[in-house]
Amino acid sequence: MTRLVLTRHGQSVWNLENRFTGWVDVDLTDEGVKQAKRGGQLLAEAGFKPDFACTSVLKRAIRTLWFSLEGVDRVWVPVEKTWLLNERHYGALTGLNKAETAQKHGEEQVKVWRRSYDIPPPALDSGDERHPRFDDRYAKLDPALLPGTESLKLTLDRVAPYFHDTIAPKIKAGEDILISAHGNSLRALIKMLFDVSADDIVKVEVPTGNPLMIELDGLKPVSARYLDEERAQPLSFAD
Amino acid sequence: MTRLVLTRHGQSVWNLENRFTGWVDVDLTDEGVKQAKRGGQLLAEAGFKPDFACTSVLKRAIRTLWFSLEGVDRVWVPVEKTWLLNERHYGALTGLNKAETAQKHGEEQVKVWRRSYDIPPPALDSGDERHPRFDDRYAKLDPALLPGTESLKLTLDRVAPYFHDTIAPKIKAGEDILISAHGNSLRALIKMLFDVSADDIVKVEVPTGNPLMIELDGLKPVSARYLDEERAQPLSFAD
Repeated sequence: MTRLVLTRHGQSVWNLENRFTGWVDVDLTDEGVKQAKRGGQLLAEAGFKPDFACTSVLKRAIRTLWFSLEGVDRVWVPVEKTWLLNERHYGALTGLNKAETAQKHGEEQVKVWRRSYDIPPPALDSGDERHPRFDDRYAKLDPALLPGTESLKLTLDRVAPYFHDTIAPKIKAGEDILISAHGNSLRALIKMLFDVSADDIVKVEVPTGNPLMIELDGLKPVSARYLDEERAQPLSFAD
Repeated sequence: MTRLVLTRHGQSVWNLENRFTGWVDVDLTDEGVKQAKRGGQLLAEAGFKPDFACTSVLKRAIRTLWFSLEGVDRVWVPVEKTWLLNERHYGALTGLNKAETAQKHGEEQVKVWRRSYDIPPPALDSGDERHPRFDDRYAKLDPALLPGTESLKLTLDRVAPYFHDTIAPKIKAGEDILISAHGNSLRALIKMLFDVSADDIVKVEVPTGNPLMIELDGLKPVSARYLDEERAQPLSFAD
């Protein structure tokens, strides 16, 4: 039996300001730091000893991972940071306030962009300064890979190969893994692991900074629970 | 011209307690955290943008690296943690107070162990609980590789292949590199880079948490300076 932990970053500045964040590199709030540290303590109490950890290239997830590793006193564990675990790219909505966007485009349209499985928001123009091709951290990638917008499905299309090529072989080799990522890259992982339908996965809410501990037999989940029970969300997908 | 920064971890608990540390995973003091953060600020002021970073598997160096990367706002940079950059292993002296050891074995003997180039302290017994073979972080390594003691020369014997195989190719490819490590693994790097004699390298003191910025033409240093001038040490090796 191996253990896989999925942790969504602690509360970020734009979670708090109710803005579409996507690939913007906003930091944790003080409350987010507190959540991340608490998550680390809970991992320690659960006796979790990761052999490998991975995260996105966004600081809210990276710092949450660091607090987790400090919590379990294993900061020496190898860490891979990859854009493949980034949050879903929010396209032209990036940076906009969610309420204002709803006033402008209508509640229904915003709901479609936020909660449909395969309809992405309007794309960023490739000349837009928010486009990832202007960001140093993606400079070594083929620019053709860099999205100007993403649906949850498109997010899964990049998360899936990373899971199959990098994470799954380690799980099969008996390694315990810690993944610190984002609401939608974690939805993508949950969809794959628990075989959740497109209709159901968009309803799954992953709480911030609350480790989801999954026990696996091979790649098959046999149990799942949030370690911070007071801040847990329903695990209907794990039934 | 590429830039290579060598940073010794900030003050550790055992630096302060005047104990032989070696591979023991002691943490930074509050002063050490302050030094590390200040180092990160100075790197930012120098416009340093590392493309790659590496460190040991010891938390005082890892956390110092994290503060450095936060200082330059590049926590997304790939980081490799390797035991090859660990502090020199202090053998049977590990954990002992330096003054008490001098009283017991004599000042001269301790000076030989601390300051000779190629005479290691007495080795740890392989059954000693302080031996690295009992430490989870080395579990995947061939136990035959794990030292029970090291001289500076033996430290260099493991640092050198890491430098040549991993760091040098990146420098040649034009990458700017940040190395966060320890007094003796950094002495080993300085000996190689500046072609320092065995007699001279043992006199080099690397201050804690003070980035040494080296500009390179190929692998050849053309300048070197400590960014915190008030806490600098002589750079006679760079003359």
